[in-house]
Amino acid sequence: MSRFFNERYEGLKPYMPEEEIQSKKVIKLNTNESPYPASPFVYRSIDPFEVDSLRMYADKDANKLVKAIADNFGINENQIAVGNGSNEILAFSFMAFQNREKKFFFPAISYEAYSIYSHIFKINKTEIPLAEDLSIRPEDYFNLDGVIVIANPNTPTGMALTASEIEQIVRTNRDNLVIVDEAYIDFGGESCIPLVEKFDNLLVIQTFSKSRNLAGARVGFAVANPELIADLNRVKIAFNPYNINRLSIIAGAAAMKDKDYFKKCTNEVKKTRERFSKEMSDLGFTVLDSKANFVFARNTAMQGNEYAKALREKNILVKSYDDPQIKDYVRITIGTSEQMDAMIKATKNILGIEETNMPS
Amino acid sequence: MSRFFNERYEGLKPYMPEEEIQSKKVIKLNTNESPYPASPFVYRSIDPFEVDSLRMYADKDANKLVKAIADNFGINENQIAVGNGSNEILAFSFMAFQNREKKFFFPAISYEAYSIYSHIFKINKTEIPLAEDLSIRPEDYFNLDGVIVIANPNTPTGMALTASEIEQIVRTNRDNLVIVDEAYIDFGGESCIPLVEKFDNLLVIQTFSKSRNLAGARVGFAVANPELIADLNRVKIAFNPYNINRLSIIAGAAAMKDKDYFKKCTNEVKKTRERFSKEMSDLGFTVLDSKANFVFARNTAMQGNEYAKALREKNILVKSYDDPQIKDYVRITIGTSEQMDAMIKATKNILGIEETNMPS
Repeated sequence: MSRFFNERYEGLKPYMPEEEIQSKKVIKLNTNESPYPASPFVYRSIDPFEVDSLRMYADKDANKLVKAIADNFGINENQIAVGNGSNEILAFSFMAFQNREKKFFFPAISYEAYSIYSHIFKINKTEIPLAEDLSIRPEDYFNLDGVIVIANPNTPTGMALTASEIEQIVRTNRDNLVIVDEAYIDFGGESCIPLVEKFDNLLVIQTFSKSRNLAGARVGFAVANPELIADLNRVKIAFNPYNINRLSIIAGAAAMKDKDYFKKCTNEVKKTRERFSKEMSDLGFTVLDSKANFVFARNTAMQGNEYAKALREKNILVKSYDDPQIKDYVRITIGTSEQMDAMIKATKNILGIEETNMPS
Repeated sequence: MSRFFNERYEGLKPYMPEEEIQSKKVIKLNTNESPYPASPFVYRSIDPFEVDSLRMYADKDANKLVKAIADNFGINENQIAVGNGSNEILAFSFMAFQNREKKFFFPAISYEAYSIYSHIFKINKTEIPLAEDLSIRPEDYFNLDGVIVIANPNTPTGMALTASEIEQIVRTNRDNLVIVDEAYIDFGGESCIPLVEKFDNLLVIQTFSKSRNLAGARVGFAVANPELIADLNRVKIAFNPYNINRLSIIAGAAAMKDKDYFKKCTNEVKKTRERFSKEMSDLGFTVLDSKANFVFARNTAMQGNEYAKALREKNILVKSYDDPQIKDYVRITIGTSEQMDAMIKATKNILGIEETNMPS
């Protein structure tokens, strides 16, 4: 650290724990990207005119993108705010809805960014433990006094609350804002976007990074009533008015319009997840019920970080954890069918289970 | 504002003052974009493979881009941090180098973002008035006690300090960080990047939005000693680890490598600026000595906002100001030669000066 560094940030990690190996030999099942390329609509959208136009600032309202999202969900454009990835939208939400006297509440095991944003924006937080089965207990979030942030499905567990469970949380917190992070909603969960019409204390966040195959474009969005959206945009315009670049605006709009491809990709992931979960169970793993594009699994033979290390030696990356409650688990992104076959094969090898061509 | 909005942000403007008219009929001389398209290298860099790869997160270190910048300036990669536009790098700098007891000092008339970031990050600021001729007096910044931020060339004046004047400021503030925002440096100013080797209290910020014809790609960067860069990256990784999208990383790297095109475009802007400044002077305007891709000009016949309004009626956008010290001026981006001809013609018309084909 330099002698000029803000002491408030001293505890921040100097690097990300995930490994980013871009080599083709490596099977990357650690950051929940889509195994399928961006929609063909995306490539077609990036034409020479758009590239030449890079000389000009983008539309700061990202109208084309906002309109595509509005059309997709049948909502109004003033109910949508867009960000440079859902991370930026989350950061803006923590900034916009921070309130000196009130806390932020979120699950003790969830997306790490909630705790990081609490740190950098000096927000008073309370982390609510998961149940013993690693689920979120909706009743733990009833009648609180502060902003509530819930990832649904949660990460790294993949477990989801139903929309009516979320609705109960929203209903019992009419004086509190409830932020639902639906990064993984399109793989089997129930979105709360329809509830936004009914509740002015609900903010739903989604991303193009997972189900829309555009992690590299950095596009996320929030859906809420127009007042909340105007608040978010006020922070965005102060922080970075042109926060989404020109090509990501058109790429995002194109991806959102290709509904068939979206369905095809998400269905394929769900199918592969079910098949892979079954196979892992057959190998003796406990696999949590996932509604996401990853599974959370453990076996009794080795801790998560040992298993992850053994997989790494076989060029497969998965994510493991230090927290005692989940240290036995690894989080495995659902890749292509072939990648999951390789994963099963590597796992059998690690566990000393003989390969056989006979049905189990 | 919603009932949940952070009271700290209540004073923030709900929208940007600039008009963003994307119509082709309009000549847009209000946001200092390049009038020339992105380098042909940029278009070639965005191939089908890169678009397909959008499914994956970008390299969070943006290595290709950082390497292209390092090669261009003959510095090390650990002396460079990159951001989603220089706005984001500025925001991260205000966050990283905020110090509870110390102030931020910057010119009272300069880039608006300094004042906005002071507001949103609750930074104690002192705005130092410009001299009567609208220049920055270097001696006003000697021996201060806090972080110093100077745009060089300054906006909206276009006037520049020399590198040795900046060096004096850095030298007399060895216990303070000096941030030099060189957004407009490539149009005739002297960059302080070479001084970074000598001073560990200097942070230089540049952007791809002006001289590198990529406003729409959102790429900015900071150059400083490795400790300061590590501090900035610590904030970036907490705030948004994948802050630059895949296509902007390759577009930025490609643009940086096309040195000939960069020279051609910046030279053309400088040539047009000199010609246009002369013509405006001939029409009776006072035109400040600009080292930027814009000029700051006034005439005695009308205030800046009247003149800007009259131009707008002729489909030409320029920027005017409310601050009493500069309310007589407008800031005019240097566009193509043809655009500046149209600007001169419109101005003659507004001022009632007869068009003539005879040499003046």
